[in-house]
Amino acid sequence: MRTQVVIVGGGPSGLLLGQLLHNAGIESVVLERQSRAHVLGRIRAGVLERGLVDLMAQAGVDTRMKAEGFVHDGTLIAYDNDMFRVDFASHTDATVLVYGQTEVTRDLYDARDATGGDTHFDVKDVMIHDARTDTPCVTFSQNGQSHRIACDFVAGCDGFHGVSRKTIPESVRHEYEKVYPFGWLGILSETPPVNDELIYANSDRGFALCSMRNANLSRYYIQCDTSDDPANWSDDAFWDELRRRIPPPAAEALITGPSIEKSIAPLRSFVCEPMRWGRLFLCGDAAHIVPPTGAKGLNTAASDVHYLNQGLRQFYSDGDSDGIDRYSERALSRVWKTQRFSWWFSTLMHHFPGQTAFDKKMQLAELSLLRDSREAQAAMALSYVGLPY
Amino acid sequence: MRTQVVIVGGGPSGLLLGQLLHNAGIESVVLERQSRAHVLGRIRAGVLERGLVDLMAQAGVDTRMKAEGFVHDGTLIAYDNDMFRVDFASHTDATVLVYGQTEVTRDLYDARDATGGDTHFDVKDVMIHDARTDTPCVTFSQNGQSHRIACDFVAGCDGFHGVSRKTIPESVRHEYEKVYPFGWLGILSETPPVNDELIYANSDRGFALCSMRNANLSRYYIQCDTSDDPANWSDDAFWDELRRRIPPPAAEALITGPSIEKSIAPLRSFVCEPMRWGRLFLCGDAAHIVPPTGAKGLNTAASDVHYLNQGLRQFYSDGDSDGIDRYSERALSRVWKTQRFSWWFSTLMHHFPGQTAFDKKMQLAELSLLRDSREAQAAMALSYVGLPY
Repeated sequence: MRTQVVIVGGGPSGLLLGQLLHNAGIESVVLERQSRAHVLGRIRAGVLERGLVDLMAQAGVDTRMKAEGFVHDGTLIAYDNDMFRVDFASHTDATVLVYGQTEVTRDLYDARDATGGDTHFDVKDVMIHDARTDTPCVTFSQNGQSHRIACDFVAGCDGFHGVSRKTIPESVRHEYEKVYPFGWLGILSETPPVNDELIYANSDRGFALCSMRNANLSRYYIQCDTSDDPANWSDDAFWDELRRRIPPPAAEALITGPSIEKSIAPLRSFVCEPMRWGRLFLCGDAAHIVPPTGAKGLNTAASDVHYLNQGLRQFYSDGDSDGIDRYSERALSRVWKTQRFSWWFSTLMHHFPGQTAFDKKMQLAELSLLRDSREAQAAMALSYVGLPY
Repeated sequence: MRTQVVIVGGGPSGLLLGQLLHNAGIESVVLERQSRAHVLGRIRAGVLERGLVDLMAQAGVDTRMKAEGFVHDGTLIAYDNDMFRVDFASHTDATVLVYGQTEVTRDLYDARDATGGDTHFDVKDVMIHDARTDTPCVTFSQNGQSHRIACDFVAGCDGFHGVSRKTIPESVRHEYEKVYPFGWLGILSETPPVNDELIYANSDRGFALCSMRNANLSRYYIQCDTSDDPANWSDDAFWDELRRRIPPPAAEALITGPSIEKSIAPLRSFVCEPMRWGRLFLCGDAAHIVPPTGAKGLNTAASDVHYLNQGLRQFYSDGDSDGIDRYSERALSRVWKTQRFSWWFSTLMHHFPGQTAFDKKMQLAELSLLRDSREAQAAMALSYVGLPY
């Protein structure tokens, strides 16, 4: 087998890249370790920055997203039994779109099917070879058979645990990491969201987030211990705890129902430098992880896809390697800014074990500043809606 | 003896309060534990916010300050061998004035002498009595003799180690504290400052600050271990280390000379709530301490003096106790915002023991944001020049 770009990983970033390349006449093969059903069953965040919305349009995969997504031009922040709104429209010309990552992935698969894109599921033993030459190749096995694909480039879109990052020798990689001492216990429920916009809540009992996927699908989170287990939490216990962490008007308006999904996610900040090694390029979670506060995971993956798509188009159309040569530098410049935002927002909103009364006062003072200062709101809004590519 | 207001502590905040009260026809007695020479020999910061400059004018003690002080409308921030400027004028209508705290204190003493204000030096065993009644009094000894002053109010301007805060019972006081794991080694030298404006430097070797008192009196600091001793540092060693922490152009321009003072200051954040207990009011360091980054110590004391002066004038002129009843709330509201700024600026600029590579990247990302973002600069400038009273 031979193709131009092997995309390792069939999640949303790999598929988005595949679609953008296809539209530029660049051929790709997608290799996915899991089954299609598994990929489409993953529950992830659903707040899309303008940059990602624009890329989906550029990919020609925005019809359903535009019809079903919800435009949000502000968000609510709660603390100390009070609540204030950050209005994106008064600080930026952008908004965000609430549309589940699962739906993004589904739309991208439908589009890939329609264009006859080559996608292999349930592949095993993926290995990337000769990445530092002009003729890399990728080997894998499927249904007990070994395969080899020769290619020009490899896009590593296979997430934090994928093989792509590990292909870069340890002597070359610099990895930066922060593990937060708590997790998020999340519930998905077929109930109307408590509020039209998201509510991020800093409470003495820990962080809470009221989010949603659509008008009858709500997503709620509460900060929990990393050692906790969803099995420890009945639905009622979850709702009771959530009510205690959000301001009384929100707690009273909350409509509860049976959970259709309940899980715990850890919180981690992680960056690998460089994001390019020869003809291998890391995209999204393969190179960096953000804590979910502010929903930057998929959005940052999308900005990587944008820079890589630009670089590959430039290479194939003009024979100019400037874009791929500068991929790592360009992607990382934006990655670090987004890392800072996600770290800052996480640090501001959570209860930290061992947090002193002074530390707590600093959180409250920063939240007051955010409530009262136009400049602080503007700085937050610019990052929340997404920095320009 | 009897007076209207006993001011415990003859540092700049106590004297400024005394002068403002005098101008409103309110009588005070100042009690100072040290000698006058000792008080005037203390080396402190010298960046005055507009609020303090205005209060000095209101007190009628601004002639020399206006003639000799240096208006600064920006500051430099260095990191990663690079340097950028935050221009206050493009974000606020205020500036700061560089004029040593020692000079402020001297001017205030001269003014107090001119108005015949009653000041007792070298007092011992100060005790504040009956603060929760309408007839408090203060006892002390001087030259082996015991004294008692009956008064209407007591202003506790006697610093972190003074008796005033400790007069409030522990069951009433809430104290918030953060001790930073480093100190500042400072040098005063009769050399021209390396730069017209202050340079705050974040370096891998630790923080450095290039400051000044006047055109031929420079003040430089380098972050050091809390256990360090000025005796470990020859002047040459200090200058060498300073050069390594500031960008090459500044290091090359540095003019060195013998130090005329060399000392280590610890860094601490501290707030005591409430700031009022009956007829006792805490002002300045008696109630709160900031780390010196951004020079908010004297400036925050001045805002306390402003609120207390307002409250006492209202009481004596209109018989209205609203201002003194709300003193603690008003003062603390601004105190916490300033604490946040000093904590944030300190956290941003110093090397922390145990700081991970990720933590360092977050500092650099925040510094890049400050360099590149108009909104981030505006938020910083507003706090730097001083929040409105």
